[in-house]
Amino acid sequence: MSAIRHALTTKREDDFAAWYQEVISAADMAEESGVRGCMVIKPWGYGIWERMQRLLDDRIKAAGVQNAYFPLFIPLANFEREASHVEGFAKEMAVVTHHRLIADGRGGLKPDPDAKLEEPLVVRPTSETIIGDAMSRWVQSWRDLPLMLNQWANVVRWEMRTRMFLRTSEFLWQEGHTAHADEAEAKAETMRALEMYRAFAEEDLSLPVIAGEKPENERFPGAVETWSIEAMMQDGKALQAGTSHYLGTNFAEAANIRYQDKEGGQALAHTTSWGVSTRMVGGVIMTHGDDDGLRVPPAIAPHQVVILPMLRDKPEDQALLDYCEGLRAALATQHTLDEPLRVLLDKRPGKAAAKRWDWVRKGAPIIIEVGARDMENGVVSLLRRDALWNTDNGKPAFQTPTREIAGQTVPSILADMQNALLTGARERRDANIVRDIDTMDGVADFFGASKYPGWVEVQWSKPTGAGLEKVVEQLKAHKLTLRNVPMNTPPADGTCIFTGEPAVERVYVARAY
Amino acid sequence: MSAIRHALTTKREDDFAAWYQEVISAADMAEESGVRGCMVIKPWGYGIWERMQRLLDDRIKAAGVQNAYFPLFIPLANFEREASHVEGFAKEMAVVTHHRLIADGRGGLKPDPDAKLEEPLVVRPTSETIIGDAMSRWVQSWRDLPLMLNQWANVVRWEMRTRMFLRTSEFLWQEGHTAHADEAEAKAETMRALEMYRAFAEEDLSLPVIAGEKPENERFPGAVETWSIEAMMQDGKALQAGTSHYLGTNFAEAANIRYQDKEGGQALAHTTSWGVSTRMVGGVIMTHGDDDGLRVPPAIAPHQVVILPMLRDKPEDQALLDYCEGLRAALATQHTLDEPLRVLLDKRPGKAAAKRWDWVRKGAPIIIEVGARDMENGVVSLLRRDALWNTDNGKPAFQTPTREIAGQTVPSILADMQNALLTGARERRDANIVRDIDTMDGVADFFGASKYPGWVEVQWSKPTGAGLEKVVEQLKAHKLTLRNVPMNTPPADGTCIFTGEPAVERVYVARAY
Repeated sequence: MSAIRHALTTKREDDFAAWYQEVISAADMAEESGVRGCMVIKPWGYGIWERMQRLLDDRIKAAGVQNAYFPLFIPLANFEREASHVEGFAKEMAVVTHHRLIADGRGGLKPDPDAKLEEPLVVRPTSETIIGDAMSRWVQSWRDLPLMLNQWANVVRWEMRTRMFLRTSEFLWQEGHTAHADEAEAKAETMRALEMYRAFAEEDLSLPVIAGEKPENERFPGAVETWSIEAMMQDGKALQAGTSHYLGTNFAEAANIRYQDKEGGQALAHTTSWGVSTRMVGGVIMTHGDDDGLRVPPAIAPHQVVILPMLRDKPEDQALLDYCEGLRAALATQHTLDEPLRVLLDKRPGKAAAKRWDWVRKGAPIIIEVGARDMENGVVSLLRRDALWNTDNGKPAFQTPTREIAGQTVPSILADMQNALLTGARERRDANIVRDIDTMDGVADFFGASKYPGWVEVQWSKPTGAGLEKVVEQLKAHKLTLRNVPMNTPPADGTCIFTGEPAVERVYVARAY
Repeated sequence: MSAIRHALTTKREDDFAAWYQEVISAADMAEESGVRGCMVIKPWGYGIWERMQRLLDDRIKAAGVQNAYFPLFIPLANFEREASHVEGFAKEMAVVTHHRLIADGRGGLKPDPDAKLEEPLVVRPTSETIIGDAMSRWVQSWRDLPLMLNQWANVVRWEMRTRMFLRTSEFLWQEGHTAHADEAEAKAETMRALEMYRAFAEEDLSLPVIAGEKPENERFPGAVETWSIEAMMQDGKALQAGTSHYLGTNFAEAANIRYQDKEGGQALAHTTSWGVSTRMVGGVIMTHGDDDGLRVPPAIAPHQVVILPMLRDKPEDQALLDYCEGLRAALATQHTLDEPLRVLLDKRPGKAAAKRWDWVRKGAPIIIEVGARDMENGVVSLLRRDALWNTDNGKPAFQTPTREIAGQTVPSILADMQNALLTGARERRDANIVRDIDTMDGVADFFGASKYPGWVEVQWSKPTGAGLEKVVEQLKAHKLTLRNVPMNTPPADGTCIFTGEPAVERVYVARAY
């Protein structure tokens, strides 16, 4: 067995954080912008996000939710009226105070003191309050409900420590906002959005997630209930990949979203909000990346198949290019995962081997190389990104089907890969969840015993208020957090590991991004 | 002949500005947000914008341009280094100076004086300078060129007088930014983008436009050449609907976009930028709207066909709904304008006639009403939005084809409507362009003689500098502007109406939005 020379210099097992940065750079996904806390999302990274947008948007529209667009700027007054919401966000927002620049007398510019805003404006960190204003105008009667809106937008939360895709001052997301006649309908919508996110994560991103309710201390500021999908990264840490909030009547009261009910009385609407962001791109990297770079699940790959002609800078190249173009066109007529195949013929100058490794690092699902001799023999060299290496000889595991066979099998290889990535990630996650620890010392030992420990599911008594704070402090000492209370798990039958009281449910404990 | 009772209260001929506001409100497209200069784009308006985005994005991608995303915030230093660019934008930008709020001691919030940014950040009014920074990192060798990027984003220009869609402080747009090895390539890209916009406007939006070069005084700040597409609204005013700029090496020099050429020397890149915005939605309204509301060209209609069952709140309704759902499903399998039909079955409670007028005002291309008797007879009542009235009796001009015939003809009706809207708008525009005026007095008389005068194409000597300023002043006295110098028109053969010198080309003069 020969040693494999992987395409990245950093291995996951050596330094996961450095590996993550290297993948982003090697796959040409994003880079620091020079503007504090903001990144540039480069075409390959943005292309993956665009695919995510398209697939999630289809799911959102299928649920009868309508897209709309609300202002980037939010008046201070909107934040002042919902106390817990202010508390949660006021500390990290970008504030616009002037609307003009003038020369500063030293060759530069400065805000014009004569153009100070009467009331400063906040760059939206989330839009509950401004959309609440609109809802208060649009909802008059029970006939106007449910009102189900979604916005694709940029938001800004001033972050002191940033990490690309996972935590940036500006990020891209969608935020759903709905208003309903009563609690039951609003809670049903909260759960519908949660299930939509689960299906999106697992079916489109091959990202296995655990859906559950966040404990009180992890709730969205102003929410009555916050639900999340949590994914395990390859270093065992949890990533909150999406959230769905039941907001009760808190925001309806603050924004005055009232309606005339069927009996002619006045009632407050019950609202929800739910969102996923470019953070999910980070989740895809940390779930599917390997020591050769990214592996993009086919459903969200901007190019699912990349054809590389082995050009030799000779007149014969044209015949090879024509042959490859024929192959591209033939593949592009096929479908997989319910959509036409996305096939790129990479005609850029340069050596095929160098280009191959570019696409390996970017994680294109299938690479097809075609040389002059392959063309003569009617075969292609096909490389599956999820089965890159021949472990016997340490070389890339090329298959060499005929052009016809390749054309026929590519769609099923992609569907298989979409599924294999999910299955592989789920097996790894499940192998790294421990359920038989029943003391806090045991939890601490577990997380101290290995570099990438995984999660512990414990039983607890669900304390609130000061009792919960104590639990959070205990965990914090070990850099641990409560993730969520999973749905569909057996009822508790033991003792709370934090309080010693009878347990009422199970909750995940993990290190987290 | 009976009088038609139109669906709007304001007629175009009476008060075009008031009519425009009424259409936006009656078609439920957008509304004031309460945040200065910012509007809320409601689902029907946003749905039209989403369709525009999808169709233009396809054209952008087909040209080999890649989407990416750059920061919302731009450091002051970026603006300081390109003098004419600063001059053009510094006067109307939102400036972020703080990153935190604190209690103001009076129950409200204020920017935290301890969280003042060392260097204020500007909310992007356009992204040449920040994308230039990225290009300077990404472009090293001639092999990296051309670099063709596009961004879909929100931008902010502080506007004192705003009008929905046409001029708002925040608006949505796409901005293409490309870098090339030399002037010839960059100019070719400038023209490619211009032609892409022309085709998009005419083919997708049924919006006839005149493509041409803007005179020097109307250039984008920092550009060497600015080209535009100009559309005539129904009040005769011009709307600049898209621009494409050749930036020379101005921005490359400011951002240091240099590359090693094939000979090993260092060279400056030549850059371009081009954009269209939500302003185009305003252009669609003012081109295709009528006294009954909006008429949406089928290619950009969120719903092309709306089916209205005439429900009677009785048990028999279910059979009617099932019948209509069958019709919807059958239509949805058909294609028009190269895409599957977008068909809505409107099941909302309420009277069919009230809902009909909702959809008329929104401008859905085809409305199909089905009552119990229609179902029995196997017919439907079909209304074309572009042929709404029977002028003989002042009633809606329903056609009553069989269900089968309706199913077969809907795609061709939509294709026909797409074309008829373009043809109608082009004929109206062409009838309102005057080319035989050869004095400035004549121009002034023309624009003083009617309420909605149209455009004048005049011959001019293309003065520059102070000479051009004089022309601009002359026109300004009559609230007129130079629009563009059209491509593909006969060479000048007369005298400049402004200077009396021999004319060198033709230019459009008009009032403008």
